[in-house]
Amino acid sequence: MRRTRFDDAECPIARVTDLFGEWWTPLVLRDAMYGITKFEDFQHELGVSRAILTARLSRLVDEGYMDKVPYQDRPVRHEYVLTDKGRAMWDVLAVMWRFGEEHLWEDGEQPLVELAFRDTKERVRPVVVDEATGRPVDLAAIRIRSRTRTRR
Amino acid sequence: MRRTRFDDAECPIARVTDLFGEWWTPLVLRDAMYGITKFEDFQHELGVSRAILTARLSRLVDEGYMDKVPYQDRPVRHEYVLTDKGRAMWDVLAVMWRFGEEHLWEDGEQPLVELAFRDTKERVRPVVVDEATGRPVDLAAIRIRSRTRTRR
Repeated sequence: MRRTRFDDAECPIARVTDLFGEWWTPLVLRDAMYGITKFEDFQHELGVSRAILTARLSRLVDEGYMDKVPYQDRPVRHEYVLTDKGRAMWDVLAVMWRFGEEHLWEDGEQPLVELAFRDTKERVRPVVVDEATGRPVDLAAIRIRSRTRTRR
Repeated sequence: MRRTRFDDAECPIARVTDLFGEWWTPLVLRDAMYGITKFEDFQHELGVSRAILTARLSRLVDEGYMDKVPYQDRPVRHEYVLTDKGRAMWDVLAVMWRFGEEHLWEDGEQPLVELAFRDTKERVRPVVVDEATGRPVDLAAIRIRSRTRTRR
């Protein structure tokens, strides 16, 4: 049975859910952002079946998150390289990281890994703000409205 | 067959994926953030089966994203109210919104809805920055490292 699709929903969150709700897909994107490009390496890192990994990578290529690029001739071999659209998904993963490290470990426990800036070596704590004003995007301060025709 | 679980993974992204990868769950959380509390209202909004909605709400309650609170005595009826932990998931949804509106509509098309601040009426464009410094959390500027014992 095909799941209910959300990819033509009117809500942007629902459209992303259509992709992220496929088991393994956020982790495939994550590993791609960490520099993995080859099918065998994704499979080794994730421990996922070849069939599922093939399906997930195909969708990511079809929808423009990755390019499938030949890197060897005989036999022909491909690697999977993030596009700009794929790389833009990092924002979502970064905030998932923050939520996870803050809320999904037992009291007194913490993940063994953390995000840091390469240059300053300071730890990174991702938060969400408005691009133009820098204001926190607090749920209580936000509403959803119909887009007016003047706002193209 | 039980899916591979990610909820005890060492990676914070994987732990969130364990929840978000359940079809419908991000949309249940979204609707809760929009103020929906009653089972029938979630079902009406989402068009999801009672069985799936029951399972999704149960997990959200079990894992502390929502409280199940009686609001009526005879017959007893409950509503589902986001906890602080549940509300904190808004950050993830806000960034999914931004990604979706930017990348998941055809050229020249846009969602019919947008996010705006209640007070200023300005449109909100969520972006991810580092909490302490306000620096963008660009993938190229970040690395993952082992947590050192001094950084509690």
